[in-house]
Amino acid sequence: MSKPAVGFVGLGAMGFGMATHLVKEGYPVHGFDVFPASVERFQAAGGIPAASLKDSAEGKNYYVCMVATAQQAQSVLFAEDGIVQALPQNATLLLCSTVPASYANAVAAELQSRGRADIRFVDCPVSGGAKRAADGTLSIMAGAPEEALQSGHDLLQAMSAPGKLYLVPGGIGAGSNMKMVHQVLAAIHILGASEAMGLAAQLGLDAHQTAEKIIGSEAWTWMHENRFPRMVEEDWNPGASALTIILKDAGIITSSARQHRFPIPLCSTAEQIYLSALIQGWGPKDDSSMVRQYYAQPIAEVKSAASAEEQSASLQLVLDLMLGVNLVATAEAVSFARYLKVDLAQFHGLVAEAAGASRVFINKGLEMIEGRIGENAPAGSQTVDEAAARLETVVQKARDLHCPVHLGNAALSALYMARRHGLGSEGSTSVIKVFGRD
Amino acid sequence: MSKPAVGFVGLGAMGFGMATHLVKEGYPVHGFDVFPASVERFQAAGGIPAASLKDSAEGKNYYVCMVATAQQAQSVLFAEDGIVQALPQNATLLLCSTVPASYANAVAAELQSRGRADIRFVDCPVSGGAKRAADGTLSIMAGAPEEALQSGHDLLQAMSAPGKLYLVPGGIGAGSNMKMVHQVLAAIHILGASEAMGLAAQLGLDAHQTAEKIIGSEAWTWMHENRFPRMVEEDWNPGASALTIILKDAGIITSSARQHRFPIPLCSTAEQIYLSALIQGWGPKDDSSMVRQYYAQPIAEVKSAASAEEQSASLQLVLDLMLGVNLVATAEAVSFARYLKVDLAQFHGLVAEAAGASRVFINKGLEMIEGRIGENAPAGSQTVDEAAARLETVVQKARDLHCPVHLGNAALSALYMARRHGLGSEGSTSVIKVFGRD
Repeated sequence: MSKPAVGFVGLGAMGFGMATHLVKEGYPVHGFDVFPASVERFQAAGGIPAASLKDSAEGKNYYVCMVATAQQAQSVLFAEDGIVQALPQNATLLLCSTVPASYANAVAAELQSRGRADIRFVDCPVSGGAKRAADGTLSIMAGAPEEALQSGHDLLQAMSAPGKLYLVPGGIGAGSNMKMVHQVLAAIHILGASEAMGLAAQLGLDAHQTAEKIIGSEAWTWMHENRFPRMVEEDWNPGASALTIILKDAGIITSSARQHRFPIPLCSTAEQIYLSALIQGWGPKDDSSMVRQYYAQPIAEVKSAASAEEQSASLQLVLDLMLGVNLVATAEAVSFARYLKVDLAQFHGLVAEAAGASRVFINKGLEMIEGRIGENAPAGSQTVDEAAARLETVVQKARDLHCPVHLGNAALSALYMARRHGLGSEGSTSVIKVFGRD
Repeated sequence: MSKPAVGFVGLGAMGFGMATHLVKEGYPVHGFDVFPASVERFQAAGGIPAASLKDSAEGKNYYVCMVATAQQAQSVLFAEDGIVQALPQNATLLLCSTVPASYANAVAAELQSRGRADIRFVDCPVSGGAKRAADGTLSIMAGAPEEALQSGHDLLQAMSAPGKLYLVPGGIGAGSNMKMVHQVLAAIHILGASEAMGLAAQLGLDAHQTAEKIIGSEAWTWMHENRFPRMVEEDWNPGASALTIILKDAGIITSSARQHRFPIPLCSTAEQIYLSALIQGWGPKDDSSMVRQYYAQPIAEVKSAASAEEQSASLQLVLDLMLGVNLVATAEAVSFARYLKVDLAQFHGLVAEAAGASRVFINKGLEMIEGRIGENAPAGSQTVDEAAARLETVVQKARDLHCPVHLGNAALSALYMARRHGLGSEGSTSVIKVFGRD
C-alpha cells in the first residue's frame, strides 16, 4: 500500500534527519525551510522540495512541524499563507518541536477559534539527537485526543524506536510536559557531569580513571557517560550539543515552573550557570565545555601525586557529590512531574531509557513515585541527615580547594531545608517533601 | 592617670590603624608583625617595636590579637614562645580577628587545658574598615564572661565609636556569632549590588540615575551605596575591598552553617559565584568588580534609547529584584541568628547601623524579630505570593535578556518553597518559615 504524502517544515539538524528517514520509509515528503540551501540538500537526499509553506501543506493529509521554537511554530502555523490555512479538512498535524505545554494548548485553542477544529493536532516532542532522528529511532512523547493519536500513529511509529513511542495520557500539552520534566534531569545532569569532573581535577584525580569509576557506580548518569569523552578531548567547536541548546530547553522549564510558581532550585541554578557562561562567550561551544567553569586547565592533563589511599578517598568525594545532586534532582523532577499530573510510572520508564537517566533516579525515583518514603522507606535506607553529612563533607572540601560546586551547594540547601522541617531522620527520599504536597 | 602597656600582633591594614589609634590615645603599644617592614612603619608612627611575639606579650596586662585568620591566631597564641606563654597572670587578651565562634570557644578551652584560665579572654571581632580603625570608630562585638568584659572595656571603648561597642550576651563565641550573622547580609548584598547594576545595564538603564533611585528607595542597601561608585569608576586594582576578603568571611559563615546543618541558600549561592570569579582570576580585584559577572562591558557606558515610560518600568524591575533578594536575605539572616541564639534586638540595632544594613532588613527584619508575621503581620502587608509575582517578573525578564540573576533566582525558589508549604497568602515576612522553627 502506497504511503500518503507528508508536508514537513524545519529541515535543521533534527528535522533533516526525520524528514529524510520518512523518505527512506517510502513517504513522499514535501519539505520546506526558510533556508533554501536546506531545501536543496533535502531534494538531493530524495525529498520533494516545497516552494513555499503553502506549497508544503496544500493537499497534504499529514504534516510534521519541526521548527526550533514556539515562536517559529506560531509563525509557520498561523501566518497568512501559513500551514493551517493550506491544510485540507481533517488533516493530521504533528508538532514535534520542543515547546511549553502552554503553547501546545494555545495552538489547540487557536485551531478552534479559527474554525479549524477538524485538524487532528498532536503535541509530540521528540528526544534523542540528530543521529537517532536520521535512523528513525527517536523517543517520542505524544499527547492528543484519541482520534488524532490514532491518525498520526503510523508516522510517529516510523520516526521512533521500538518501544520508544510514548502515548502520553492527558491530551494536548501532556507530551510537552513529559518532555519538559525529562529535561529537568537532563539540564541538571549536563552541569553535574562538569561539576563532578571539575572537582575531580581540583582533587588531583586522573580524569579517565574517575570517569570509569563513576560509570560503574550508583553515581552514574547518562549525561556523564555521554559528555565525558568530549570533556577530555576538549572537542567543543562547533559542538555536538551547543550550550545554547540546553539553555533553550532550560528556558522552557524555568518559564513553565514560574508560571506554576513551582520551585526547581537545582534546574534553575544550572540555568543561571549556563547564562554566566553565555556572558563569557561559551554559547556556541559544546555544553561539555562547562567543565571549564570548575577547573581552568584541561582536565586530561591532571596527574595525581597522591597515594592510592588518598585517591580512593578523593574519588569517594566525587561520587558523593553526584549521589547528593542526583538525589535532589530526582526529588525535584518527580515532584514537578507529580504537580503537573504527568503519568509517573510512564515518566519513570521513559527517563530510565533516555538522556535524563541516572541510577539514583532509577532506584530512588521509583521509591518516591511508589510512595515508599518516610515510614514506608526500605529498611536500612540512608537518612536525610546521612545524605546531608556526606554531601556537606564534599562541599566543604571543594570550598577548601576554592572549587565551586553550584549544584552540590543547592542540593545541600534542600537537604538542610528538609532537616529543618523535621525530616532529618527519615529516609533520604523524604527530601521530596520540601517541594510540598499536591 | 597613665595608660597601661598594650601588646599588639597583626599590623595589617586594620591592625595598623587600631594600634596607631591606641598610641594616639596615650597607650604604650608594643607592636609585632611577621613582616619587619610593618613593625618599622609602626615605630615611625609612634609605636614601640617588639622584637618578637614573646617580647610583645611579656609583662603586658593587655593584649590585642588582630591577625587575619583563625589559623594565624592559633599559631601566634599557642606556639612555643607565643603570646599565651608570655602573658602575665590575669592579663586581658582581646581576640579582634574575625574567626568562627567554634574557634573562639576552642581558644577558651585551650587556655583552660594549658592551665591559663587566669587569662581574661574576650571574643571581640570588629567591623568598619581601615579608616574607622585608624579613627577609633569601629563597631566591636564583644562577648566574654563579665570579669573579662570589664577588664577589657577601656581598650574596647578606645577603639570603637560612641554607641558601637556591642557587649554581646552569651559569653565567648557570642561576639563572633554576632559578626558572622551580620556578614550573612554583607556577603549577599555585595553580590546583590552587582546583580542589580548588571541587570540595569542589560535593561539599558543609565547607571548613575539607577543608583540614585535605588539609594532613595526601599531597595537601598548600605553595600550598594558604598560599592556603586567603584563599580562605575572600575576602580578595581588593587581594590579597596578585595574579593578574597568577603570570600574569607563567606567561608566562615558557610562552614559554620554546615556545622549546624542550617540552610543559607542566598549566602551560599553568593559564595559559589565568588568562587567562580576567583577561578576566572578576579580574586585580588575589588569585590565591586562582580558587576562584570552580569554585564561584560563598563556599565557607565550604557546609554538608554528608551522612552521615559519604558525606563521607569525597567527601573522598577531593578528595584523589585533588590526588594525580593533583600527580603529573603533578611529571613535567612534572622532565622540563622535566632537558631544561634543571638540576641535579636541587639542584632537588629547593630545591623541597622552597619555595612549589612538594608531598608528591608530595618523594616521587615524588625517585623520578623518581633513575631509580627503570619496572622500578626501588619494589615495590608504584601503577601508571599505577591512578592513572588514581582520577583518572577524580573527573573523572567532577565532570562529573556540572557542576564544571570543568581540571587534573584535563589530568592524566588525560597518564596516558591514557602508557597508550596501553604504560606502563599500570608504576609511576605512568612518566608522566614521555610527556614524552619527553633
